[in-house]
Formats: sequence, C-alpha cells, structure tokens
Amino acid sequence: MGAMSATQASLDVHPDRLLPTQPEVRDVARRLYAATKDLPIISPHSHVPPQWLVDNKPFADPASLLLTPDHYVLRMLHAGGAELSDLGRGPDGPVELDEAAARKAWRILCENYHLFRGTPVKYWFDTTFVEVFGITQVPSAETADAIYDQVAEALTRPEFLPRALFERFGISVLATTDDPLDDLAPHRALAEDPTFSGRVIPTFRPDRFLELARPGWADLARELGEVAGVDTGDYAGYIAALENRRRYFKEHGAVSSDHSHLDAGTQPLDLAEAERIYAAALRGEVTVEEGRAFHRHMMSETARMATQDGLVMTLHPAVYRNHDTDNLERYGADAGSDIPVTVEFTKALQPLLARYGNHPNLTLVVFTIDETVYSRELAPMAGFYRSMHVGVPWWFIDAPEAIRRFRGAVTETAGFYRTSGFIDDTRAFLSIPTRHDMSRRLDAAYLAELVAQHRLTEDEALATANDLVTTIPKKVFKL
Amino acid sequence: MGAMSATQASLDVHPDRLLPTQPEVRDVARRLYAATKDLPIISPHSHVPPQWLVDNKPFADPASLLLTPDHYVLRMLHAGGAELSDLGRGPDGPVELDEAAARKAWRILCENYHLFRGTPVKYWFDTTFVEVFGITQVPSAETADAIYDQVAEALTRPEFLPRALFERFGISVLATTDDPLDDLAPHRALAEDPTFSGRVIPTFRPDRFLELARPGWADLARELGEVAGVDTGDYAGYIAALENRRRYFKEHGAVSSDHSHLDAGTQPLDLAEAERIYAAALRGEVTVEEGRAFHRHMMSETARMATQDGLVMTLHPAVYRNHDTDNLERYGADAGSDIPVTVEFTKALQPLLARYGNHPNLTLVVFTIDETVYSRELAPMAGFYRSMHVGVPWWFIDAPEAIRRFRGAVTETAGFYRTSGFIDDTRAFLSIPTRHDMSRRLDAAYLAELVAQHRLTEDEALATANDLVTTIPKKVFKL
Amino acid sequence: MGAMSATQASLDVHPDRLLPTQPEVRDVARRLYAATKDLPIISPHSHVPPQWLVDNKPFADPASLLLTPDHYVLRMLHAGGAELSDLGRGPDGPVELDEAAARKAWRILCENYHLFRGTPVKYWFDTTFVEVFGITQVPSAETADAIYDQVAEALTRPEFLPRALFERFGISVLATTDDPLDDLAPHRALAEDPTFSGRVIPTFRPDRFLELARPGWADLARELGEVAGVDTGDYAGYIAALENRRRYFKEHGAVSSDHSHLDAGTQPLDLAEAERIYAAALRGEVTVEEGRAFHRHMMSETARMATQDGLVMTLHPAVYRNHDTDNLERYGADAGSDIPVTVEFTKALQPLLARYGNHPNLTLVVFTIDETVYSRELAPMAGFYRSMHVGVPWWFIDAPEAIRRFRGAVTETAGFYRTSGFIDDTRAFLSIPTRHDMSRRLDAAYLAELVAQHRLTEDEALATANDLVTTIPKKVFKL
Repeated sequence: MGAMSATQASLDVHPDRLLPTQPEVRDVARRLYAATKDLPIISPHSHVPPQWLVDNKPFADPASLLLTPDHYVLRMLHAGGAELSDLGRGPDGPVELDEAAARKAWRILCENYHLFRGTPVKYWFDTTFVEVFGITQVPSAETADAIYDQVAEALTRPEFLPRALFERFGISVLATTDDPLDDLAPHRALAEDPTFSGRVIPTFRPDRFLELARPGWADLARELGEVAGVDTGDYAGYIAALENRRRYFKEHGAVSSDHSHLDAGTQPLDLAEAERIYAAALRGEVTVEEGRAFHRHMMSETARMATQDGLVMTLHPAVYRNHDTDNLERYGADAGSDIPVTVEFTKALQPLLARYGNHPNLTLVVFTIDETVYSRELAPMAGFYRSMHVGVPWWFIDAPEAIRRFRGAVTETAGFYRTSGFIDDTRAFLSIPTRHDMSRRLDAAYLAELVAQHRLTEDEALATANDLVTTIPKKVFKL
Repeated sequence: MGAMSATQASLDVHPDRLLPTQPEVRDVARRLYAATKDLPIISPHSHVPPQWLVDNKPFADPASLLLTPDHYVLRMLHAGGAELSDLGRGPDGPVELDEAAARKAWRILCENYHLFRGTPVKYWFDTTFVEVFGITQVPSAETADAIYDQVAEALTRPEFLPRALFERFGISVLATTDDPLDDLAPHRALAEDPTFSGRVIPTFRPDRFLELARPGWADLARELGEVAGVDTGDYAGYIAALENRRRYFKEHGAVSSDHSHLDAGTQPLDLAEAERIYAAALRGEVTVEEGRAFHRHMMSETARMATQDGLVMTLHPAVYRNHDTDNLERYGADAGSDIPVTVEFTKALQPLLARYGNHPNLTLVVFTIDETVYSRELAPMAGFYRSMHVGVPWWFIDAPEAIRRFRGAVTETAGFYRTSGFIDDTRAFLSIPTRHDMSRRLDAAYLAELVAQHRLTEDEALATANDLVTTIPKKVFKL
Repeated sequence: MGAMSATQASLDVHPDRLLPTQPEVRDVARRLYAATKDLPIISPHSHVPPQWLVDNKPFADPASLLLTPDHYVLRMLHAGGAELSDLGRGPDGPVELDEAAARKAWRILCENYHLFRGTPVKYWFDTTFVEVFGITQVPSAETADAIYDQVAEALTRPEFLPRALFERFGISVLATTDDPLDDLAPHRALAEDPTFSGRVIPTFRPDRFLELARPGWADLARELGEVAGVDTGDYAGYIAALENRRRYFKEHGAVSSDHSHLDAGTQPLDLAEAERIYAAALRGEVTVEEGRAFHRHMMSETARMATQDGLVMTLHPAVYRNHDTDNLERYGADAGSDIPVTVEFTKALQPLLARYGNHPNLTLVVFTIDETVYSRELAPMAGFYRSMHVGVPWWFIDAPEAIRRFRGAVTETAGFYRTSGFIDDTRAFLSIPTRHDMSRRLDAAYLAELVAQHRLTEDEALATANDLVTTIPKKVFKL
C-alpha cells in the first residue's frame, strides 16, 4: 500500500497530545493535567503476571514482551494477514521465541504499523517507544531491525528489570487477576520481600467455577474443594469453599472479585433449586439453561458474600469468547477473537440491587463494552444506588474518543463521583504508564471543556481531576 | 473528600454559558441566542401543581420547594449516602418539614453539591440561585445556612409568590399532568379568575386506567365510570367513559394526552378479544400478557380517539418504575429509582402509524430515554409520517451534551421541523426558566455550528432558532 | 411558517464547507482535502440506471431527474404534507410528467426547502444547484419557477447528457444494482461501445430469490431456472442456477453481490433440511420460520460461493420495508417508508465467519443503519477477521455528523484499513460528485483532528486520506 510511504518522519510524542486543540481551552486543560500527571498510579484491575516481579529477570526480547501477550495487537495483525504462529503463538498460547522468530514477529508489527493509525494501540506504542525506550524512528519495514535492536539492548540493562520499571512508573498499587485455586505464592513472596516496597495484590476471578454447564466443571468443583479443604460434594460445601477462598485472597491483600459472564443476570434461586442444579451438575447432567440460571444466582450470592467480607465486586459481562472457533483450536484462548455482544442491565441487576444495592459493605462496579447502556441504564442506576459505580471504558473502548463518549454519556446523569476511576486491565506491563496518562489527559480535556462552557469553575475542575486519580479509586476499591 | 476544598469561590453564571467556545462560532451563537432568549415560554408538558397558582401562597421553605419534590435531586443525594427521610420524604411522599428538618435537608444538599458537578441539576441550581435569588456563595457545608436564610427570606416577599414568578418567568402556556378522575377545579379556577392572565391547561394522563393487570384496576374502572357518568361494566362503556373524560379535559383547555407504558406497542385487538380481556379484568382474572395486549390495543384506540377529538398524543415509554422495591415500600413512588430500559419503536408503532400516521387530526410526539432509537427509528419515521414528531430529550437526557447528541442524531434525517420543541417535564417550578433557557442556548450553539460549517446561512439559522420556540411548539401542540 | 422569510439570500457553497471550524485544524484539513478532491470517483455500489448511459438522451425535466426517483426527498416532502401523486409517483412508481405536473412537483420541493435544513439532502441539493447548474437563488416559493427554468434549460445542452456528466464527474467505476434475471444488456452495450470509455459494472442482488416465504417465490425460482438454463426443480438445481448467474454477472464485470434481509443471520442448514425446505417452498408450503432459516443458510452458501468465484459480498440488513402499508398499496415500493430496525451481528455472523472469515478469496463488507453495532460488534470483528470490513454509513446515516460518529466509533478499534471506502448507494446520479466530495471533506476533517491532537503526523494523515479513496476501495472491491 502507498500507505507505507508516509512513515519516514521521526517518531515524536507531543506534550499536548490529546488535549483540546482550541488554545483557550487547551490552556485550562494543561493546568488540570499538570496537577495530576505525576501522581502515583493506582491500578486496581490488571493482568500483569506477578511472577515477573518476583523473579525480576530481564525480559526475553521485544516481541515476547510487547507483542505476543497482547491480544489488542495480535488481532489487528491477524486481520492484516499475519499468521499467529508467526507472532509467537502456539497451540496453547505464547511460546518461547528464538531470535530469528522474535525478529520476524517484530518485523510483521513494524510493517503493518499503518493498520493501527487512529487506534490507541499506536498511541500506546508511540509513547512507550519514545518515553520508555527513547526510540526516534517510526516503525516500518525499513526500521524494524533497528528498533528491535534498540529495545533488545535496553532490556539487558538493570533499569529495565521489572521492579525497576515498577518503581519508575510510579505504581503505588497493582492488582493482578487470579484463579481461585491459585496459592498466591508470588503475592506472598512480594509482600514478604523487604527489598520490594510495591503493593501487588490479587483479584478473585471465579468465572469458570460458577458456570456449571462448562465441560470439565465437576473436576473444577472437586479441585476447589481440595484447595479450600472443604467437601464440595453438595451446594453448601461449594458455597463454603468459595467463601474460604475469598477469605484466603483477602488475607493475601485482595480487595475485589471480578466476574465476566455472557449476561448480567442476578436472579437468585431458592435454596432447593440451587442444590438441585448443583447436584445435577456434579453428575454431569446440567442443561445450558440450568447453568445460566445458576451463574445468575451466584452473582446475587457473590453480592451477599461481599456484604460480609467486603470484597468489591466488578462485573465485565457480555463478551462472546473465542468467536473464531477454528482459531481457538489452533492457538488457544485470548488470541484476539473475543467479540462483544449487547447487554441489558436494568432488569438483570434489579434482583441484586433491590437486595444489596444500598448495603454499606457492598461496592459494585459495572463495566460495559456496549456503550448504549451508559446513559440509559448504568448512569441512572449508579445515580441512585449507593453501592453501584459505573466502570470506566474497558478493552475495545479504552480509547480517546470512546472515553470522551463515556464522560459525555455518564456525567450528566451520574456525575464524576459515581464512576470507578481508571483501570488499565492490561497484560502489557510497559503500557501501564501511558494508559493511565492517557486517561488523565482525557479527563483534563473533558473538565476543561466544562470550564470553557462555564459549567464548572476551574477550581471545581481541579478538585475533580485530582479526586479522579486519588480519592475516587481509593474509595471505590477500598485501598 | 478533597473535592470540597474547591467550593470557596463566588457563585457566578456566565452570559456565554453553554455557547460554543470557539470565538468565531460563539459570535454566531450569541446572535442567534439573543433573538430567542426573551421570547415567552411555552411549556406544553410539565408537572407543576396547578393548585400553587390558585392559592398563590408563599412557598414554605427552601428544602420543600427546591429539594424534596425533585427526584432528580433526591436520587443523587441518596446515592451519596443520604436517607430520604432526612430529605423530607415520608412513607407516602413529601412530608411537611419544620425548620430544623428543612435546614438539615438543605445542608445535605449543600454538603454534597460536588456530586452534581457536570450534571444539569448543578447547572439549573446555579442559575436559579443566581438569577432568581441573587445568591453569590457556592453551596457547601460552610455556606448551607447562609444560603438557606437568603432563600427563606426571599420566599416571604410578594415577588416570590407563585403568580408573580409565573409572570416574571414569562410563561405564556403551562400544561400540567392530570388524572382522568380529576375535576380540574384548579384549572377552571385559574381560567375564571380575572386577576390571573396566564394560560394553565391540563393534560390527560390515563396510564393506570389502561393497564388492566395492575392491582386495583377494577376499582379504577368503576371510579372512571362514576366520574364520567357512564357504566363501565363492559368494554363499550369503558371506551365511552374515556372519550367522555377526554372531552371534559378538552373543555378545560387540554391539548394533549400523555402515555407512559413499559413498551411502545400499538397492536390493536379485534373487538371480541378486547371485550373478553376487559371482562376478565373486571373479574380480576386478567393475565400479565393480556394486560400488555390490552394497553397496546389502547394506544391504537387512543390514536383513533385523537383523530376525532384532536388531542395531541405524547408517548414516554420504557421506564422500569420503582426499581428499588425496598425504597418503594419505605418512601413511595417518584423517589428516584425509576430506571430506563431499552425500547423498540419501528415494529411497535407500525400498527398505529399504518392506520393513522398520516391523519390530519393526529399529532403523535414520541419521546425516548433510549438514545439508540434517534437515528435508527424515530427520525426515519418522523421524516416520513405526517403525524409523527420526535420529542426532545426527556428526564435523564434533558442535559447539555445529551441535547447536542439528540440534534446530531435526529436532524440529519428529520431536520428541525419534525421535532417537538422543548418541554421541561418538571416538578421544579423555579427551574422552568433556566431549563427553557438552556435549550435555547443549546439550539443556538448547534445552529451556529451548522453556520460555521457552511451548512446553513445565518439567516436560515435565525429563522430556525425562532421557529423552534414559536411556530414549532405551537403547531405540534395545537396552541 | 416564519421559516420561509429567511430564504432570500443568494445560494452559495463555501470552499471550506464541512471542514473543521478552528483555524489551525482547518489548515491541516484543507491540505488533506486538497490532495484527494480531484481524484477519480470509485462508486462500487449505486442504483443509477445503466440504460441512461446507453441511451445518452437528455434528462426529461428537473422534477423527474432530481426529485421523483429519490426517496430521500420524497419522504420529507410527504412528512411535510405533500401527496406523492403530486411528486410524480403513480401506483407502480415514478410516472411521466407533463410540464405542468413537473413544475408543480418542483414548486413543492422549493416551498418546503426549509424542512431539509440540517440534512444532507439540502447539502447535496445546494452543491448540485451551484456546482452543476450554476444556480444562485435559494429555493423557495418565489424562486421555484426561475430555478426550474434554469435547470430545464441546462438539461437541453450537450454537456448535460448522461455521458458528458459521467465524464465531467470524473467517475472511474460505477457499479449498478441488478436483478439475477437481468440480461445485463446495458452493461454489455457500454462495454462494447468504443465511444464510451467509462467502466459501468453490474452487482448481483438476489434477495427476492433467497426469501422462500415471499408470495410468488416459486415463480421466481422457475424464471431463475429458465434464465440460467438449469432445472431449479430441486435444491441442487437452484444452487447451480445461482452459481450460473453469478458467473454470468462476473463475466459482465460484476465484482460483488449485495444482500439485504431483515436480519443478519448466517446459520447454515444441513443439506437434507435445505432440500426439504426448498421442496416445500416450491409447493407453496413454506412457513415464515422456514423461510428465515433458509435465507440465513443462503448467506453462508453465498460466502462459500464467494470463496470460489471471488465476488465480494456486501450486507445491508435490518430494514423494515414498506412500513406504511397503505402507502405501499397506493405508490409501490421505494417511496420513503422503509424504516430501520435493530440488528445483531456478533452471534448472527459467527457461523459464516468461523467457516470463511479468514478465507483469502472472501471479502465481506457489512453495512448498518443501527449505529450501536459499530464499536460493539463490527469494529471488533473487522479488527480480527481477514475477510471482514466495516462498510461506511449508508442511507439515513450517510450524513456529516453520522459519518463523524462512524469514524469515531470504528477507528479506535478497527483503524482505517478495515473499512470499505465510500459508497454513494444512490439513485440520484447528479448527486454522486457531491456525495463523494462530502465524504472526502469529512475524512480530511477527521484526520486533521487526529493530527491536531498529535495522534497522527500530517504525513500519516495524508497517506491515509489518499488510501481511503484509492487503494482501500480498490482492494476491498477488487477493482
């Protein structure tokens, strides 16, 4: 494509990037942004492997650090024609790459860099390249090797070790996402290590244990019982085992549980029906409908547990996982073909909210990729129920214009103080600072617009900008 | 929260608020706004109690005037942690407040004023405080008492009596919302009072009479018959009674009927089926499905009646009423937990529109809180059917950005002349001028953008701005 | 209406129309637009009658050229009160107009020109009037006859013959939309005519042949068999006949097939079930459900055919055709009452995409009028599947703000290179240049914003603007 001919200029990131372009409004935004840009990063929901920080070993190579684990990148390169096997993916996920393979994958990224124009992936890469690695060349077929060399060289230096980056990025809290069976040894190791002062906490993510119609669920239930030291042979034991593991996570620092089912239902079952379905599932005789009824029931049960143990409850529903079934067989999950579906919250959350929606111990943060629910459902509910907050844009819509749409759709009904604060939700460790910085720039931009329209004073905007990265996430996630 | 520290500056409302921030575009908007800002207010859909204007007594206190009746305010204070009982609500709605209770409620509002940042509630309050009461302090814990005193003192003065405000606000028509059983005595009293020159007209709101599966419906049907002087023991009598009450409303000045059911269905039933369901409902044997089929039938019946008596038909569907069932038991309806749901119009309205959608006597105005239908369903239908108009944003989305989205989504398909003109839909009498003014500012802003993009001449924009607050609402609501 | 008083100024189209209004951003946009404004027009999906170009006769009169065939115009004039019979429509579509009738229709348009303020129809008319006809008067009751005369006079001149306009407009490719039974004689005539150098190609539009529950389908199946020379008495023959006609279309230059059903389903049937439903339909015994299952099956079958013959597959689903059934009886189809409905793609397309979504021979372009699917469904899928592209806004949403919303909702997930390039989809031949020009202006404006926000360099923006009207449509439509 002729597209490639443009990529000869030098790579640069502008200090005013993402701020309003109108000079008078930009001046306000600059002042608001200046007040928050250097504040510590609170990351209450990410997917960084904690073992990286325990081991603190140099990252292997540019491709396996920046490309292979990141399904945001894989998906677009796949759409552009790349084979996932050329991008470091094997049948069960990422594989180790030799230098030739790493270079090949890297070259595919650089050759196809124009595909990312207008996307946040380009924005994050540009910023990471410049600000973390000091790169000055625009990625392209011609520059692929030189950039690879520069990144690879950097990764051998001590200041690019995981803990050094953690500190350099100014991360004050990092929450990982973990399986209920996990012994959380990395988190314990980090907490007990006197040479590491960061706070790295787990998040309880029990989805597969709550979906009884999944293949292999009965084995999971047994394993859950073993790890919890509780007999999960009946429903009461299952509930006790989950409560036990939540306690274990909480003892290891967890502040939240995370939930992602295909719908947002929360209709509770009566005890006998829950017991009946549970027993059927153990025998492998559960239907899809029963499985769905049970996970909905478990959302209300989870809220009940939260009113007791205080773990914040985050919902990320309505994604059709592994849409490309052929790709799933060849490369495993998380390879780029998870696709959102429409979601309904008003009716779905009513049973949970009518029971627990104003309970002082419950905090419920609801995320969506279906933007239609912001002004219609989420903001009206979060503007009434004490427990409920609207999560910031997630995944596909963690992007500049989408974030602007979020503020535009949510704020007029729910204000700023019923939203969650930023979460990065990322596997891409090196992108954490630019993701948080992007959010701060965009919030400064939005607030500056309100000031320019005389809807807020600059003092009010400044206090709000500050709250959005300090008091709000601390309060919402009980940090 | 640190948030509060910002609220020390003096309260101010800027003459250019909500206008475009770019100077060249703002200049156009200023000229457009100047042409409409002082035109009389036409309010064809509100919830102001007409008895206030009949009695013309001083308002009791700041809280019971500005806070307690306004569910926009209650909901956010509730979300922020307030008890509704501390905001003047008892088990059956608002209660009388002594001064201590009124001051306490007022203090809660002022302490939590930061929750409203970015919402239109703050905008309306700021403007009302400054322009109606001359207040100069930003509401906060520190200023709560002083502002209370200032408002309370003003309310004792003759220029703050309901009729004086009605005149000061420049209201030329105010439509209230009324029950079919209402004798409309206040409206008659006002019409017959030679000392009051305002036009205050009722609106026929028969929802609860059309939902046959509601508890207590059979009693309502009997009462309807009594008031109408018609035997409602069969379906024909019921229809006659409704037609009779519509006539009564029309004789008392009504120009429209208003309808709010959970869906927008209009499928008519054949006569025998309507009679059968009606009879079953009188015996208390109607199912939810039959009730739904009947109210859908009645929407087409209402359109038929409108082709005969000419009452404009306004639809406000798709709200889940009293979502927080616990709150409903404790504080009654209209306390902040009504939550929108998704709505479908294309299929739902087809039976009505195919029958009556081009009838010269029918005007149908369709409102939505589900913004997704603007460009997909409402604008295409209003851009074809002669009877149909798109209602302006309502309730949660009567807000600056949402109104901008409305114009952006509707205008390109339906233009300006297929929309309704502004309605305030409010119980908050003192906010009526700022609500209409907000709409005029936003329409000026939108039109100025079209001028700046060379899509309209300034002459065309000026004529349109004027039509939006004069000829359009007069034509749509037959005023 | 007072509205009319504004329309006295002289008609003008500004060189910066639709470009950003902020001077610094506009400067960038001007440079981007300057680079694409004179590039040839590629029109891969239109509804222009090819016979016009074969005959190359003068157009009859202003109304039958610019008004009667264009349902965008008819619908709004109808909403404004006009009878379609006064706009040149008879029971079976457009009728021939004598001068009095043509003048009357034209006058209705001019008198109601204010209805189109803010719509793209006004924009296209203004531009066409000024740039094609040199008109300087704003349409109104007063100017109707003078404008009529000026257009009518122009149409008698050789430079307004269809082929002269085709050349003047700089159209390099024009795809028409054609029935599978069509012998494509006009396309053949044009291809074989040494005096005509334009490329005019057919598009295979088989909808009515794939909807087995439509009245009269069995006759269509027989006709299809006759034209294809294949016995369509069983399913295998039907498939062969369709493949045969596709081949015929391809031999006559077709590059795509176009599909518009009420939903986007693609679930294949097993062969026996497809055969069973087909046989039932031939006997006139097919149910609505079976018909729906069959057309969904045929979408996957069409994709399979495309992997063999390479015809690009375009989907335009989810329109409720002839919503005003009364109007349909009186004036036939395409008279303005087709209304969009909600659409779901993630689940609906999964069967097709899982089978063929990465096949090198398949290109699938998905269009929507339901804007909610852009960020939620279409962009995520097009950002993963190699075959899939997101179609640009179509019909009601081929409009300036809607196009801006499209770029805002799609680009951050799918970039620019997974979109289709512009299509005009129009019956209004004379509006083709202004429609393509509008798109180029809006893309320049959007790209300029990205540059101003420092998300793209101007070089990157320039390359992208160019690709959007050259390499991208050529690649997507295999031109």
